[in-house]
Amino acid sequence: MTTTPDSVVRAYIAEHSSQFFADLKEWLRIPSISGQPERHPDVRRSAEWLAAKLRETGFPTVEVWETAGLPAVFAEWPSGDPNAPTVVVYGHHDVQPVDPVELWESDPFEPVERGERLVGRGAADDKGQVFFHTLGVRAHLAVTGRTAPAVNLKLIVEGEEESGSPHFADLLRRHKDRLACDVVVVSDTGMWSKDTPTTTTAMRGLTDCQIDFYGPENDIHSGSFGGAVPNPATELCRVLAQLHDEHGRVTIPGFYDDVVELTERERELIARLPFDEKAWLANAKSRAPWGEAGFSTLERVWARPTAEVNGVWGGYTGPGHKTIIPAEAHAKVSFRLVADQDPAKIQELFTAWLSDRVPDGIEYRVEFFGPGVRPCLTPLDHPALQALTRALERAFEKEILYTREGGSGPEADLQDILEAPVVFLGMSLPDDGWHAPNEKVEMPLLLKGAEAAAYLWQDLAESLRK
Amino acid sequence: MTTTPDSVVRAYIAEHSSQFFADLKEWLRIPSISGQPERHPDVRRSAEWLAAKLRETGFPTVEVWETAGLPAVFAEWPSGDPNAPTVVVYGHHDVQPVDPVELWESDPFEPVERGERLVGRGAADDKGQVFFHTLGVRAHLAVTGRTAPAVNLKLIVEGEEESGSPHFADLLRRHKDRLACDVVVVSDTGMWSKDTPTTTTAMRGLTDCQIDFYGPENDIHSGSFGGAVPNPATELCRVLAQLHDEHGRVTIPGFYDDVVELTERERELIARLPFDEKAWLANAKSRAPWGEAGFSTLERVWARPTAEVNGVWGGYTGPGHKTIIPAEAHAKVSFRLVADQDPAKIQELFTAWLSDRVPDGIEYRVEFFGPGVRPCLTPLDHPALQALTRALERAFEKEILYTREGGSGPEADLQDILEAPVVFLGMSLPDDGWHAPNEKVEMPLLLKGAEAAAYLWQDLAESLRK
Ligand SMILES: [Zn+2]
Ligand SMILES: [Zn+2]
Repeated sequence: MTTTPDSVVRAYIAEHSSQFFADLKEWLRIPSISGQPERHPDVRRSAEWLAAKLRETGFPTVEVWETAGLPAVFAEWPSGDPNAPTVVVYGHHDVQPVDPVELWESDPFEPVERGERLVGRGAADDKGQVFFHTLGVRAHLAVTGRTAPAVNLKLIVEGEEESGSPHFADLLRRHKDRLACDVVVVSDTGMWSKDTPTTTTAMRGLTDCQIDFYGPENDIHSGSFGGAVPNPATELCRVLAQLHDEHGRVTIPGFYDDVVELTERERELIARLPFDEKAWLANAKSRAPWGEAGFSTLERVWARPTAEVNGVWGGYTGPGHKTIIPAEAHAKVSFRLVADQDPAKIQELFTAWLSDRVPDGIEYRVEFFGPGVRPCLTPLDHPALQALTRALERAFEKEILYTREGGSGPEADLQDILEAPVVFLGMSLPDDGWHAPNEKVEMPLLLKGAEAAAYLWQDLAESLRK
Repeated sequence: MTTTPDSVVRAYIAEHSSQFFADLKEWLRIPSISGQPERHPDVRRSAEWLAAKLRETGFPTVEVWETAGLPAVFAEWPSGDPNAPTVVVYGHHDVQPVDPVELWESDPFEPVERGERLVGRGAADDKGQVFFHTLGVRAHLAVTGRTAPAVNLKLIVEGEEESGSPHFADLLRRHKDRLACDVVVVSDTGMWSKDTPTTTTAMRGLTDCQIDFYGPENDIHSGSFGGAVPNPATELCRVLAQLHDEHGRVTIPGFYDDVVELTERERELIARLPFDEKAWLANAKSRAPWGEAGFSTLERVWARPTAEVNGVWGGYTGPGHKTIIPAEAHAKVSFRLVADQDPAKIQELFTAWLSDRVPDGIEYRVEFFGPGVRPCLTPLDHPALQALTRALERAFEKEILYTREGGSGPEADLQDILEAPVVFLGMSLPDDGWHAPNEKVEMPLLLKGAEAAAYLWQDLAESLRK
């Protein structure tokens, strides 16, 4: 194994960092919000921008892959060594909406540096983390003197992750041959803290929907009719209030049937992390913990499923007051899932639960935003996870601990369709503000990500060698 | 008693009806929405318009009375007879907001005739009903040959009724001497149907508020934090869901303590009305009845208090989805009250109930829209109500039955502060669409209202003569 001194890798990365961030900012200026139809041309522009940049990086094959929705970017750089293992790097180039935009201190799509932070929509989730791979592979080549990576390196960067990846499984199935690999490296996650670098072993899945309740044909006078017809806003609240019991458990029958419960050892490992609930609450911008009885805060966000009201609206919501019975009321509801819950089954259970609870006189509709995202879980003793741990330990010069992620991605599809283990090289921090105003990323961590990638390709070339 | 043949009164009114409706349309074009600050100049314009028209009608004294909010119009026409009784006619010149404006088939402030209907915001509630008094008093004078009414006639037309009349009680107290009277005639109500003319004996009161729940400082990622912090949207739904028990009764302790229960005779009288629940539901634009167990639909809207969610909003409500825990959630909640519930006491009870139900980690605020409106109830055997019944019987040439009103007005203040009985000369129908899109009034009924007023002044001059 040819080892380059790590200081040489670091020096290369430091030298190229200012161009790296200049390029990243250019990408962040493209408002590639997949959840808003009027932004779809920008999502396409974002794919083209990335494709051009990957060509410039040196990938001999770069393609924009169309889907039934928004395009993904594929890139491939063969090692040339027939015994080299193959790696697929996963990320996404779409971003979340920016509402409420008035809470942003700067234009979400005009990235600005504040000290070591880069602020802008997508800085952490996920453009910054996709983009460090361009620097990582160049560092890997420069310091090893190679003209192609030590592994067969493939990138798949999708454009609909923030919309629940509705066409990603199809894309993976269609291109299964070209995406064949020995391991998937996901760069769309976070770590514990700057001081406690970690990698992730599980992710919660997701399914979410919109519920529409229809009462009177139009808003009616609450004096003339109040107390004698059902009110869709009151009724919707009444149904949503039944989502949890008094112990914070989701009440949908069968909801917990497929949950893989935490083992005692896993609960001990979680307890080893230097968890400061006060600081966690500050990151959560929240005043108090809450949740399912019998579990710690970390266990709740990492290993327990949820039901959450993401939005609710109906009736008169303007200034002053209007004493009506509203014609309609609506809610957006999401469920975070853990292994081995199946989003399709949860959708069925919820739909049945809901239909049992809608009273006479209310018409309703429930529509899920796509098939959802399956949860995933990777064993601690897997060789690819061991290699990743070594690469991170070199980059951070510290012991690497293990976490889980509460958030969703299409990792289960990668694992299931590509039939490969998934490991997580993620450089975001809990306070990066994913999906919130003033999203940021720590610039030194993106450089650490590039550094770890440079080590990882070298390590995997040996540890997974055929 | 000089009696004019009723056909003469009718002929006078028919002759002047086209000018009457032309004038009314001019008034309806003024968007006098008291609930929207940007419309307040229009409320003032509406007061000035009415004052000018009352002067033109012949009232020797017409004044615009300022309040701490929006102005009322006062007019006075003394009889000249020292033994004549004094009548105060009450109505309002402000109107409801027009949201959702896209459901209007025509501009809410460009009144249009459709057959016998006049469509526009305020046509029924309440400009049309105030305005028929100008025609009524002119008919009374023309057919009796008088130059002043047989009663001392006063009008008080307020500008904040649709905002809960926050300054009306003050106004009444300040001008109590000038408003001194023997009876109050309220023209801001409806009747059973074209075929079953009725007058009203009770009105529900009202108090309403806005509730604000605050959770995270900003919207946070439901993957990272979901299941471990309180969600203000979920929590608000949970609280609102507790407003009613499984029998449709309001759960706030003490809420029913001061309710005057219906007597058996009152329940029998209500049951005599030709109530068609299917037609009532069609008017309510609703699919099914709902309400407090043990009461009929009419009893529920006339004699039972309620709690109603008028609007609810929070979190992501745009297109697509956004898996967040929202920072805030809000609701507008109203309570309809019946005699002898006191709005101030209900506000206290609700505030205490709410504060017991807000969980740790949620900050909240509740703010009432003014002091509310007290309910009222008038005995069936009162001489003024008997006179009104006779006047209506002449106008409609039919037996007059009795109803109650589910809606709110400042009638209790009129009764309590002016120390006079209140009777109701109302010409609206249940399907007029008060507070809803496409509000209309039946033009022939406004003319019946003018006719009944002409008879009433003559009858009261005798029956309440000192
Ligand atoms: Zn992401
Ligand atoms: Zn009114």
